[in-house]
Amino acid sequence: MKKNEIPYKIYLDEQEIPKQWYNVRADMKKKPAPLLNPGTLEPMTAEELAPVFCEELVEQELDDTTPYIDIPQEIQDYYKMYRPSPLVRAYRLEEKLQTPAKIYYKFEGNNTSGSHKLNSAIAQAYYAKKQGLKGVTTETGAGQWGTALSMACAYLDLDCDVYMVKVSYEQKPFRREVMRTYGAKVTPSPSMSTEVGKKILAEHPGTTGSLGCAISEAVEAAVTREGYRYVLGSVLNQVLLHQSVIGLEAKAALDKYDIVPDVIIGCAGGGSNLGGLISPFMGEKLRGERDYRFIAVEPASCPSLTRGKYVYDFCDTGMVTPLAKMYTLGSGFIPSANHAGGLRYHGMSPVVSELFHQGLIEARSVEQTVVFEAAKMFAREEGILPAPESAHAIRVAMDEALRCKETGEEKTILFGLTGTGYFDMVAYEKFNDGVMNDYIPTDEDLEKGFAGIPDIPQNK
Amino acid sequence: MKKNEIPYKIYLDEQEIPKQWYNVRADMKKKPAPLLNPGTLEPMTAEELAPVFCEELVEQELDDTTPYIDIPQEIQDYYKMYRPSPLVRAYRLEEKLQTPAKIYYKFEGNNTSGSHKLNSAIAQAYYAKKQGLKGVTTETGAGQWGTALSMACAYLDLDCDVYMVKVSYEQKPFRREVMRTYGAKVTPSPSMSTEVGKKILAEHPGTTGSLGCAISEAVEAAVTREGYRYVLGSVLNQVLLHQSVIGLEAKAALDKYDIVPDVIIGCAGGGSNLGGLISPFMGEKLRGERDYRFIAVEPASCPSLTRGKYVYDFCDTGMVTPLAKMYTLGSGFIPSANHAGGLRYHGMSPVVSELFHQGLIEARSVEQTVVFEAAKMFAREEGILPAPESAHAIRVAMDEALRCKETGEEKTILFGLTGTGYFDMVAYEKFNDGVMNDYIPTDEDLEKGFAGIPDIPQNK
Repeated sequence: MKKNEIPYKIYLDEQEIPKQWYNVRADMKKKPAPLLNPGTLEPMTAEELAPVFCEELVEQELDDTTPYIDIPQEIQDYYKMYRPSPLVRAYRLEEKLQTPAKIYYKFEGNNTSGSHKLNSAIAQAYYAKKQGLKGVTTETGAGQWGTALSMACAYLDLDCDVYMVKVSYEQKPFRREVMRTYGAKVTPSPSMSTEVGKKILAEHPGTTGSLGCAISEAVEAAVTREGYRYVLGSVLNQVLLHQSVIGLEAKAALDKYDIVPDVIIGCAGGGSNLGGLISPFMGEKLRGERDYRFIAVEPASCPSLTRGKYVYDFCDTGMVTPLAKMYTLGSGFIPSANHAGGLRYHGMSPVVSELFHQGLIEARSVEQTVVFEAAKMFAREEGILPAPESAHAIRVAMDEALRCKETGEEKTILFGLTGTGYFDMVAYEKFNDGVMNDYIPTDEDLEKGFAGIPDIPQNK
Repeated sequence: MKKNEIPYKIYLDEQEIPKQWYNVRADMKKKPAPLLNPGTLEPMTAEELAPVFCEELVEQELDDTTPYIDIPQEIQDYYKMYRPSPLVRAYRLEEKLQTPAKIYYKFEGNNTSGSHKLNSAIAQAYYAKKQGLKGVTTETGAGQWGTALSMACAYLDLDCDVYMVKVSYEQKPFRREVMRTYGAKVTPSPSMSTEVGKKILAEHPGTTGSLGCAISEAVEAAVTREGYRYVLGSVLNQVLLHQSVIGLEAKAALDKYDIVPDVIIGCAGGGSNLGGLISPFMGEKLRGERDYRFIAVEPASCPSLTRGKYVYDFCDTGMVTPLAKMYTLGSGFIPSANHAGGLRYHGMSPVVSELFHQGLIEARSVEQTVVFEAAKMFAREEGILPAPESAHAIRVAMDEALRCKETGEEKTILFGLTGTGYFDMVAYEKFNDGVMNDYIPTDEDLEKGFAGIPDIPQNK
């Protein structure tokens, strides 16, 4: 196909926004392992999950057989406010790299939350509202998820209680103000408003908090109050289901021009973007219809797939959540200060973990300075200043394209551009000033994290 | 037409992006007054303007007869990277306001500069490159224009020297870093790098700068170096010409669904967005083909149209520019600290000024707290966190819609949403905390500004 036949941006029409999510678990022969109750070590039942998550989300969490699940009309209406998102042909980047590869990216950053997180936030808020709840609680670190959830709650007139890691609350006031503008109550964590917060503050006075602690507070704030449930922006099966809208739209746009990607690349923290992007393509691969390469990109500072263990572990540092079987660095692992806050998670979605374990996904870890080099070149060529998280996928997409330059292969590369970096300029400043460091945990660092993995029969 | 027939967002196809700009001056019977040489008081010639602006831009600046001017292919290609911009039907806002009015907005914020400024930045950078120049210089206050220009210069591989008002340079480091990421050299103004900067620093040690001073430095940096020219993001005729792409796209999208707006609303600082948005509609009005109401919205703190004088004045505080006939508060007028930095300009585009003088445009001034009330409601309903500048137009669009609610009129309202407020969260924080003030200059304040208007025969 000639260059000029394919536009810079392929937009779907509004009526082409997916009306069903795709549940990749339905096509997996070996399913992801179930969540376990840490007390009984038995699979969590719907009844056990009901105090934490709202009913329909529990159903979605446990359903690994239904391939397509209807998107309620109200969620479709909200999607129309910022979707379909564009599938962009990176003509300028290709030219700059002098590569024969064709590069496409699915850009999820054209909304005020600045990322793909809104796709699941609106779904989770909708089901909470439908169940007649008063509100939801959550934690946020860098703030993308908290922002997305506060937007969704404003739309549906739900209370939104966000526990924001204290150091971010103080050092990143802008995202906090976006959340407040949308009506969310933002509490620096640890706080005196929960028992677990009080306990942590008593033990560690002056602590600036952690994501693990904020999760524990948010869960407590949900389960101890009438009419509230806890929501989470990644890792969970339900979140990957909602995020399949990314892959479904990308595939529909590519199909319009008979484009078939050879390799599909996404950054992976908890796995929500990667899982959503690859889902429909992975479905084809699982059903034996077509083959694709998939690459998960993670920071070298937090290498759960490339250096972690595939075992049952807690999803949070406070060990209040169920156990999930996943690639993990241990729930007590503290990643070094990497600027891609959204990728600093010790574990990985059970779906992505199982697919990786089966050899269906490759994984690569990259260091942050080369990631920012890619980010800067991308910004200059393609005009979009990427989030540090997204830039991990850009880095590997560029590496793949440069390999094509050597081999002469005309591969088609698709990657997920999850969001914009407008609230990450402190990181860019460090890079611009030449004072950014790379952080790679030593084997000893990893052993410390692994030591915290529960010693249970399933992990033998 | 039924609600469901019109989508939330009307996108044009890439091939429907305008291929010509529309020059509204060509259809004005009484033309805007020419720029004057402040020494001779004669109209500025192309030769006199050539040391400051590049050749083709001088031609565009002076051309008040050619109605359509071709957009070079390279600029069209760049436009494709972030255009066409969506025309959005504000279904949610209409519902919230319970108005029979139909509200549309043209959203120009989906690009990294965060505003419409990129439409002219790429054009000005292109002509500079075409002329074989090394680079361009400019000033920036809040930073939207500087960001847009740095993006355009990165794309075209041109030097970009930005003089940024010192107080913004220090207090708003994020936009500065966006510019640096795009390779711009950002200098806090006043600086020791220009004669005028040195002089100002000697006279006012410790000054935090002003837009007027930054303009003077940028002009000096252009005219004293081989291969550089000065560029400006608003006010000029050429800028309004480039920004006509906003109105042309808006009109093409409306035409697809046979929608005819009754009233068209834009915020107005220097007039680039308003002028661009209304141009093709104003053309129809000037040619007697169709009637529209146009409303320019300005901050009560800087009310050039509603309380200014229509006279010849300098475009900058340092009085180094030509004289422009415009509604002005005097080039020495210092607007109070309003958070809509892009609207804090003492003058107004000569085109917009003349159209207003002829009674073809209405003007309204609004106070900033009611503007932020509108911004917050808009963010919650429509999902887009608006720039404070844009929120001025939202305020008046909402006021018009609420009037329709009283009268029962089913008017169609179109307004320009120039950009996003992601770099304006300090302002939102003040609003969220309830500590935002309104600033309205007294008649005495205005008299002080008027006293600085040059006492020349043309102003009698």
